[in-house]
Amino acid sequence: STVIVNLSSCSLQGILERLDAGEVVIGDGGFVFALEKRGYVKAGPWTPEATVEHPEAVRQLHREFLRAGSNVLQTFTFYASEDKLENRGNYVAEKISCQKVNEAACDIAREVANEGDALVAGGVSQTPSYLSCKDKTEVKAAFRKQLEVFMKKNVDFLIAEYFEHVEEAVWAVEVLKESGKPVAATMCIGPEGDMHGVSPGQCAVQLVKAGASIVGVNCHFDPETSLETVKLMKEGLQAAKLKAHLMSQPLAFHTPDCGKQGFIDLPEFPFGLEPRISTRWDIQKYARKAYDLGIRFIGGCCGFEPYHIRAIAEELAPERGFLPEASEKHGTWGNNLSMHTKPWVRARARKEYWENLKPASGRPYCPSMSKPDGWGVTKGAKELMQQKEATTEQQLKELFQKQKI
Amino acid sequence: STVIVNLSSCSLQGILERLDAGEVVIGDGGFVFALEKRGYVKAGPWTPEATVEHPEAVRQLHREFLRAGSNVLQTFTFYASEDKLENRGNYVAEKISCQKVNEAACDIAREVANEGDALVAGGVSQTPSYLSCKDKTEVKAAFRKQLEVFMKKNVDFLIAEYFEHVEEAVWAVEVLKESGKPVAATMCIGPEGDMHGVSPGQCAVQLVKAGASIVGVNCHFDPETSLETVKLMKEGLQAAKLKAHLMSQPLAFHTPDCGKQGFIDLPEFPFGLEPRISTRWDIQKYARKAYDLGIRFIGGCCGFEPYHIRAIAEELAPERGFLPEASEKHGTWGNNLSMHTKPWVRARARKEYWENLKPASGRPYCPSMSKPDGWGVTKGAKELMQQKEATTEQQLKELFQKQKI
Amino acid sequence: STVIVNLSSCSLQGILERLDAGEVVIGDGGFVFALEKRGYVKAGPWTPEATVEHPEAVRQLHREFLRAGSNVLQTFTFYASEDKLENRGNYVAEKISCQKVNEAACDIAREVANEGDALVAGGVSQTPSYLSCKDKTEVKAAFRKQLEVFMKKNVDFLIAEYFEHVEEAVWAVEVLKESGKPVAATMCIGPEGDMHGVSPGQCAVQLVKAGASIVGVNCHFDPETSLETVKLMKEGLQAAKLKAHLMSQPLAFHTPDCGKQGFIDLPEFPFGLEPRISTRWDIQKYARKAYDLGIRFIGGCCGFEPYHIRAIAEELAPERGFLPEASEKHGTWGNNLSMHTKPWVRARARKEYWENLKPASGRPYCPSMSKPDGWGVTKGAKELMQQKEATTEQQLKELFQKQKI
Amino acid sequence: STVIVNLSSCSLQGILERLDAGEVVIGDGGFVFALEKRGYVKAGPWTPEATVEHPEAVRQLHREFLRAGSNVLQTFTFYASEDKLENRGNYVAEKISCQKVNEAACDIAREVANEGDALVAGGVSQTPSYLSCKDKTEVKAAFRKQLEVFMKKNVDFLIAEYFEHVEEAVWAVEVLKESGKPVAATMCIGPEGDMHGVSPGQCAVQLVKAGASIVGVNCHFDPETSLETVKLMKEGLQAAKLKAHLMSQPLAFHTPDCGKQGFIDLPEFPFGLEPRISTRWDIQKYARKAYDLGIRFIGGCCGFEPYHIRAIAEELAPERGFLPEASEKHGTWGNNLSMHTKPWVRARARKEYWENLKPASGRPYCPSMSKPDGWGVTKGAKELMQQKEATTEQQLKELFQKQKI
Repeated sequence: STVIVNLSSCSLQGILERLDAGEVVIGDGGFVFALEKRGYVKAGPWTPEATVEHPEAVRQLHREFLRAGSNVLQTFTFYASEDKLENRGNYVAEKISCQKVNEAACDIAREVANEGDALVAGGVSQTPSYLSCKDKTEVKAAFRKQLEVFMKKNVDFLIAEYFEHVEEAVWAVEVLKESGKPVAATMCIGPEGDMHGVSPGQCAVQLVKAGASIVGVNCHFDPETSLETVKLMKEGLQAAKLKAHLMSQPLAFHTPDCGKQGFIDLPEFPFGLEPRISTRWDIQKYARKAYDLGIRFIGGCCGFEPYHIRAIAEELAPERGFLPEASEKHGTWGNNLSMHTKPWVRARARKEYWENLKPASGRPYCPSMSKPDGWGVTKGAKELMQQKEATTEQQLKELFQKQKI
Repeated sequence: STVIVNLSSCSLQGILERLDAGEVVIGDGGFVFALEKRGYVKAGPWTPEATVEHPEAVRQLHREFLRAGSNVLQTFTFYASEDKLENRGNYVAEKISCQKVNEAACDIAREVANEGDALVAGGVSQTPSYLSCKDKTEVKAAFRKQLEVFMKKNVDFLIAEYFEHVEEAVWAVEVLKESGKPVAATMCIGPEGDMHGVSPGQCAVQLVKAGASIVGVNCHFDPETSLETVKLMKEGLQAAKLKAHLMSQPLAFHTPDCGKQGFIDLPEFPFGLEPRISTRWDIQKYARKAYDLGIRFIGGCCGFEPYHIRAIAEELAPERGFLPEASEKHGTWGNNLSMHTKPWVRARARKEYWENLKPASGRPYCPSMSKPDGWGVTKGAKELMQQKEATTEQQLKELFQKQKI
Repeated sequence: STVIVNLSSCSLQGILERLDAGEVVIGDGGFVFALEKRGYVKAGPWTPEATVEHPEAVRQLHREFLRAGSNVLQTFTFYASEDKLENRGNYVAEKISCQKVNEAACDIAREVANEGDALVAGGVSQTPSYLSCKDKTEVKAAFRKQLEVFMKKNVDFLIAEYFEHVEEAVWAVEVLKESGKPVAATMCIGPEGDMHGVSPGQCAVQLVKAGASIVGVNCHFDPETSLETVKLMKEGLQAAKLKAHLMSQPLAFHTPDCGKQGFIDLPEFPFGLEPRISTRWDIQKYARKAYDLGIRFIGGCCGFEPYHIRAIAEELAPERGFLPEASEKHGTWGNNLSMHTKPWVRARARKEYWENLKPASGRPYCPSMSKPDGWGVTKGAKELMQQKEATTEQQLKELFQKQKI
Repeated sequence: STVIVNLSSCSLQGILERLDAGEVVIGDGGFVFALEKRGYVKAGPWTPEATVEHPEAVRQLHREFLRAGSNVLQTFTFYASEDKLENRGNYVAEKISCQKVNEAACDIAREVANEGDALVAGGVSQTPSYLSCKDKTEVKAAFRKQLEVFMKKNVDFLIAEYFEHVEEAVWAVEVLKESGKPVAATMCIGPEGDMHGVSPGQCAVQLVKAGASIVGVNCHFDPETSLETVKLMKEGLQAAKLKAHLMSQPLAFHTPDCGKQGFIDLPEFPFGLEPRISTRWDIQKYARKAYDLGIRFIGGCCGFEPYHIRAIAEELAPERGFLPEASEKHGTWGNNLSMHTKPWVRARARKEYWENLKPASGRPYCPSMSKPDGWGVTKGAKELMQQKEATTEQQLKELFQKQKI
């Protein structure tokens, strides 16, 4: 309770200096989901042309994460590889080139980072090319194109994130390592491993061998599940006698019921996930558990709003020695309720209350768990679906209906 | 499906001209809850000093609502009466005067309104003075002070909102009517009526007699319950042979389980409401139901984010003839999922899917309903709590524990 | 805690003497549901030919209710009118006449009643004739035929139960009154009243005017809802300045989500009601609430097993001065757990534990509430369904599918 | 659909002849839970003195299981070892000796078995002696004492069931094998194995090596979990190249949320388990799954009522060639609803309806899952609890309170 707001307590050192010194580094939250709700990103393509179309909206979100405690601002370059922007982004005016999107992303992130003491991380993610052709040269070229912008704009370090296949993630790390800058790598996998069945431990080993200094997971699974996965990565590295820093940026959605491919297969994805959103208290539990597991780069992905990042910063304030700026507008563990007019609301101004609350959904006709769509699909349906050309929308709907049974 | 984005289709007429012509007017969403999550408003006091401290954050939220379809931007002057700012806002630097907060709120709202065709509405809400002294002169003076700013800044019309007692709401309407501008009035009540037991029908009659041209409800209850309340208001006006336009700005939280005082008494208020957040599809149902009930000023309150307002605008696009700007980044009824790589996700690109989805919470240890705290309090506890001076925090906690049983 | 098992404490007086003296009279539980699960009654027809086919099974169930505390054993003559047995019971060997079923029912009930101090009540219930022809003479003749058996076998009093239409219930009471024996009458209605819209209060008034000394409700709704209905009956009688004893024999299923026609319209009826079964503690709450409302004939209907009846007897043991025989095998409020080997199970040996338990269903894919099937049926579907001849099974399934949406 | 009721289709062969011939043998259900609800067994001790005190109640339950399809009637000798009856059964009149209880149990089971073609199995279960002293000679003597009665009464075969420790189960099998009769052995364990951490596969191997011809699980876990455990047993036997018949008699309660020690640690045990009770359709799924796994001795334990056993017999009627007697009072998959007056209830007369129903609990204030009490206990609490002498009831309650947080 003697924690003091002190923005200068983080020196402007690089990511590895900070982590090597044992500092907790707080990541940022999920851009595509937050900006979709704000009206600037389209669900489905999930591409980041907003950096050019509406820079003020991107800037404001960065600023909110910074105020909430983020030490790293990731450039909003998710799915900003040329092949992805062409492939899915054809509703966007052609004039917005891949290069422009990436450059604007770097400029905005740096502008806001300079308002505090945050680092800027350039990010690349999985490409359509990998899935369609799996040609190493072509995929690497796509990453290299983004990397050129990151080097020109001189980001502080690089993150390869949201990879379902460790093979592609390794290629990304290899390209990013060409820059000489520190490289972090996270996969969107759960405890069952990547889409080819490579275990989390093996994924971590391959990524570190390829040159990543920081490894972990992001997206696709809830905090609980993601920490299990990072634990398996840690054990894999220990068994292989490799060293790396650990990182986690999970969903802010509760997903105990999802399968190997994570929340995408849940029937609620992506427009009915509201009842699954974590409270700030859920995130405090996550932050503590991540810290106890030895993870020191702790952030979030889809669903993480600024107040979730603030929750990480508040939970770890005793370890870090300071609160984030946005805590000026927040009482730890609800203590700002102590002045409420109703005594029973005042009685909520305490840690035990919020820690133990089992929040109701107000939805008595809804279950608590879903069956992922991917599960129930019969063999015949799967085969049919793999023959994509032969499958009309009507057939797919019929298949869908069957599998719901 | 031939709906066209056409921003110029709304002429720049006044609120009453629009409503008299049968237009649907879309309100905006909830500022204090959205800005609390973004790090600019403190839960508990819920005061709007951010208009001075962080105008860029307020501006951005206005802009998002405008893009989402709002035809009315309410000045962010909730709880901005002098008595409230002094009373609860003492953590804010004293230099930020009530007048400054209100002026900045008007300037920001007008700046953004001019980016589109929206109207600016100056808003007043319930005061601590009413609860403490109930002195009519004093309470009216507080409203008049805010009104002076609204007149100086020439807002387009006025809204008296968030009143639990119709007596105070009538006083507010009387003051606002001195301006000569159109006045809307909404109460934060449910079907059981105001805190003195005045029925919704009687509330509506008193407000219209006091000079309100538009009446309805805001906050405290979910869309379903709020529409029931407006229906009772409508019936009250019909019985009294009075005419007025109807307005609704409910919570975006599901609250079938709350009592007379609404969501404040729910154990989840205000930091555990996440599982109750409405999906965009819930809001489309609300918009349709509100429209069918004859309500033509349709917006939201706490919990309404820009995408919820967009959902109103999309549901009523056939009636209004156009989509909002932010629909460029949204496929109606999820149709942007039709290009997804997985066929079972593509199968979600249709209205029936989202209309019928019963979203799971991913929280199998949580119930679907809560018992409001206000209910279970025993007679003895209530008496004790009313003797506020005698009640220590410890006693309150003990009482709270008991009532949980 | 000084309560003593004393079977002789109830003198062998008549039902009205007991009630007039202020005694609590405990009814029995639901025969058709219990014997369906034991393998002797067919769901659908729900007819009581087991009295002839398997008297030992009927006898054993009577005996269990007697041991559990029942002071009244109802003859198992539910739906045993001639028209019903012919109509639906055609799968039963023709030799089993209506008369034999009723006679055997009386004999078995009397045999077991004599093992304790219980009264035998002959029961009639709604008839298919009423629904098909509504001819007063014909319907009364059906009741009279059963009454002849009850008179020959000299039952102690009579109950007209499970009526959806007060008109038919009045006819039943009029016939039963011809016997000179005391008559009780219960309807299977909720707070909305009978199927013609006659309010509970009006129903009670008509039944008492027709000659019933005891009125109330049975079946179709859960304890909570049933008590609301009896409360309305009580108020109706008070307003009409009539006097009668009150009686309640509700379901043992939780049905907060059912419509006017009760649990029959719930999608779980009749083969998926398990998760709704009341615990013994739920029934203790019901017994206390019924007592506090002034009801003195307290029993149960479908779903009530012997241990539910025992729960009534245990809850009201302080008022009655004794425990039932079956309490020899039951510790009040779980006190028999105090010898368990695990301390956390021993900690369950107390009232507060069981009173406050919110039991989980272990079914995370199931909602807590259902939509009754009767609700969602569209007008067109209703019309089609009323033309029964024209409706094939296939059409019904299609209708059913539609209404599920 | 050409299945015919034919009671003589099972020849009166021994258990091994039947299983060797590939027959499906249906076990019976849970006596202590069913008779507790009927008023003849006390929860806590769970001892079977009812065989002497109320033979008619025991006889009736056997008869119901026989009618429902059971091919094996187990003597009601659960916990009927001398040490258990003395230890916990001290509320029972001393005159009821262990021998009398066991003899009466044999006589009743045989009497009913002769009404059909069922086999009688004498059963022994875990003893308090094992837990207190672990003296092999003493424990074996207890089993031998029961075995003497079984031999005198000439039961058809023997079952050692409800063992938490494989060591004790092996001792039981060794004693039972002295008789020369076939021996089955089931443990009340889940996939995590016995209380000493011996895996299910290893347990099975030890039991078969000790002489058991049939191995499997009973009690403590739901059907789903129990089948997982039997699958592990099967794999263990295959790995060890041993052969045995497989058997499963799980709970009829849904327990996805229980820990290593099964449903005893769930907060609902034993008086709040109602919402977890399986429907008949859940049991049909279990029967099919058990059959597909190669299990041929399929029955149930606590919670299994006669209609659950009938569900096994109906599901496997195509394989067995006949329906049980009690199916005269049951329409397969609800087909007896096809004559209901309401078309939407008629529409429930089909397999797809009941297979896909997600039954609601009608309990919106209850969660779907519980936290087992055994989990949350802190280290300090555990230590304290292990020092049983020092632990007063008050301390235990305090501990319990703490762990609930």
